[in-house]
Amino acid sequence: MIHPPTTDPARVLAAELPGRIGASVELAGWLHRRRALKSVTFLVLRDRSGLAQVVAPAGAADLPEETVLRVRGTVTANPQAPNGVELTGPEVEVLARPTAAPPFDLFRPAVPASLPVVLDGAPVTLRHPRLAALHRVSAASVHGFRAALDGLGFTEIHTPKVVSSATESGANVFALDWFGREAYLAQSPQFFKQAMVGVFERVYETGPVFRAEPHDTARHLAQYTSLDAELGFVTDHRDVMAVVRAALAGMVEAVADRAGDALATLGVEPPAVPAEIPQLHFAEAMRMLGADEPDLAPAHERWLGAWAQREHGSPFLFVTGYPMRKRPFYTHPEPGRPEYSNSFDLLFRGLELVTGGQRLHRYEEYLAALAVRGESAGPYEGYLRAFAHGMPPHGGFALGLERWTARLAGEENVRRTALFPRDVNRLTP
Amino acid sequence: MIHPPTTDPARVLAAELPGRIGASVELAGWLHRRRALKSVTFLVLRDRSGLAQVVAPAGAADLPEETVLRVRGTVTANPQAPNGVELTGPEVEVLARPTAAPPFDLFRPAVPASLPVVLDGAPVTLRHPRLAALHRVSAASVHGFRAALDGLGFTEIHTPKVVSSATESGANVFALDWFGREAYLAQSPQFFKQAMVGVFERVYETGPVFRAEPHDTARHLAQYTSLDAELGFVTDHRDVMAVVRAALAGMVEAVADRAGDALATLGVEPPAVPAEIPQLHFAEAMRMLGADEPDLAPAHERWLGAWAQREHGSPFLFVTGYPMRKRPFYTHPEPGRPEYSNSFDLLFRGLELVTGGQRLHRYEEYLAALAVRGESAGPYEGYLRAFAHGMPPHGGFALGLERWTARLAGEENVRRTALFPRDVNRLTP
Repeated sequence: MIHPPTTDPARVLAAELPGRIGASVELAGWLHRRRALKSVTFLVLRDRSGLAQVVAPAGAADLPEETVLRVRGTVTANPQAPNGVELTGPEVEVLARPTAAPPFDLFRPAVPASLPVVLDGAPVTLRHPRLAALHRVSAASVHGFRAALDGLGFTEIHTPKVVSSATESGANVFALDWFGREAYLAQSPQFFKQAMVGVFERVYETGPVFRAEPHDTARHLAQYTSLDAELGFVTDHRDVMAVVRAALAGMVEAVADRAGDALATLGVEPPAVPAEIPQLHFAEAMRMLGADEPDLAPAHERWLGAWAQREHGSPFLFVTGYPMRKRPFYTHPEPGRPEYSNSFDLLFRGLELVTGGQRLHRYEEYLAALAVRGESAGPYEGYLRAFAHGMPPHGGFALGLERWTARLAGEENVRRTALFPRDVNRLTP
Repeated sequence: MIHPPTTDPARVLAAELPGRIGASVELAGWLHRRRALKSVTFLVLRDRSGLAQVVAPAGAADLPEETVLRVRGTVTANPQAPNGVELTGPEVEVLARPTAAPPFDLFRPAVPASLPVVLDGAPVTLRHPRLAALHRVSAASVHGFRAALDGLGFTEIHTPKVVSSATESGANVFALDWFGREAYLAQSPQFFKQAMVGVFERVYETGPVFRAEPHDTARHLAQYTSLDAELGFVTDHRDVMAVVRAALAGMVEAVADRAGDALATLGVEPPAVPAEIPQLHFAEAMRMLGADEPDLAPAHERWLGAWAQREHGSPFLFVTGYPMRKRPFYTHPEPGRPEYSNSFDLLFRGLELVTGGQRLHRYEEYLAALAVRGESAGPYEGYLRAFAHGMPPHGGFALGLERWTARLAGEENVRRTALFPRDVNRLTP
């Protein structure tokens, strides 16, 4: 009645071959490419670790790319082969045959297709090593985010994605039918993570958020993965910024440690996170820009990003103190200059990557802030409840995973860094 | 322009006090309880690490519970105090005053309230150490799940929670308005994780799934956290079961390592995961039960769970080979007995915790399976695409986080192990 697991212990990965010269091994994977030379045909096999060259036996030289294979053979040194090894004398077993060809050759070093072709065919196009590498970087980044915050005493939480009122901002919400009642997809875990500061002091969540963004831009998705954190017992927003810095450092470290091959495939170096990320107050930024506006335009962000790189050698820049009227009602004002706020954005290479700040923490402050904006406290009742029961000074931030990976890899469009992006036009695959 | 972080380095946590006797320290947290004795009043302060006793100074003896405090004082040995230490000669600073009392005393060892009271007041009731402990166990469990699978070469993925057709099963889906088009909340990442086996071979996701479950039962939620995994190049479902076993072992290990205090608060021991989890074929289970039905009823599961504990000393039991007609169309049949399937459920203490199995992997098998069920391939077009391009034999599983934690902690209702549960009646807080 008790059976041992049947995972084949004989299978080795392509990346393990250089250490197994002379051994008889079993590989499994996809036929990435056939390379027919004058006297021999090579099968290049792709598995999760990389590529391996196999000397094709008779009869296997006309298999189509993406055939799923198991190959048994001898690991043989060959200085001309990738990694200096190839599999010789192989037996090839076909595990599955493709019934259609991919929309483009998956073995070309660059991706020879437009973005819609890539996205429409995601179940197969993501097999392209360059496209897959983007998502390996994302996976490593999330690991690093969690590891950094775990090390700082944070607790992971899982909050509702369906809420009864569109509280974060009235616009851009998706409505749904919840057993006959109108409900909404959560635009952020904001209120939940704040309430959970009252329970765990320091919390994070890595999950989907939803914005019914009607504009089809290169930097917006209707669903994205938000890396959210919130912490209590802060002095002000600068304590939150210190945690942002730690999270970024953890993400970069994890990408280098766990996705080094993916970085090499993409040809990118992870950025250095300065021990102190430079920061600039919004008022000072406006002065430098010779502008007088309540928010930063994308062109402003690009200029400031270039300035931080030039003056501080930093790809990251905190802009602090955004005007209160452009920040959500729960934002804590700047002591002594209440038209400004204890908030910040982090620009990464001139693009907003993180938004955060100190929040109000007293119940009466919330009631006053809502009254100033002419909003009723009614829809916020559940939210406000945490503050009625004693909340410490706190703050937090949110980082968009797809933007992070896109910026890191030099991808212009965040649709490249979501596996199956969702936007105003795209609901499949 | 570059400022150091302002996190107060003087703050210590309650759990650190025994190592700081004689030192002058700063604590911060919530007034968990006032204890007035004849000659002295103690303030019991609660922070994320636990409780600390503070000798109340004059004027602080009538603060209400849940007041947020910063306390500076001297760490003094006192064998009668919790952990053998207390803070003496303190200065107490009030950071925030509650404006309302919690619905019940948060300092009672047991939770003196009904489930609806707990859930309605979640933003404050979850501060009760016993209720918070459940979620610390959940957080540690998810960490362990990821760590185990990371160690086995899995890649984390993030998939869409909004889909264009209700493919997993026609019933129990939530419909929503997606920019004027009808769309649905994803009931599982099933199709996406299968397609991603073609890219990464081994993938997992830890995220929300949605079931419009109209029944108000103790074991169903309309949103829950699904720990999903899928892997390629399997021989059959037993390879998947070996990964389930590794994931469970990782979860138990992480709970013991990272949530030991929470286990102590709950008074529970983590289960031992046997090196080989016992398994029983569905046909054999029916024979033992003296029944002849196409699926296991909850009473059957309880009986089998008790049997596994009695006969094998195992709180876990795999039931394999469920009849094909009760499993989804993508299920792989059992070779030689095609009325049964290469699938399994894992029972944990007599409750279904995990469902999984081997999937079909050839395009033509999918077309045939849909035809047998009288379903059109049209709505599955995007899904089937991966299989047209060559997919290895593969399988996977899904584990419900809230059920896991509830079963581990002996909680009867999964609403206790979701921070803010969502069900047919509950959409707030």
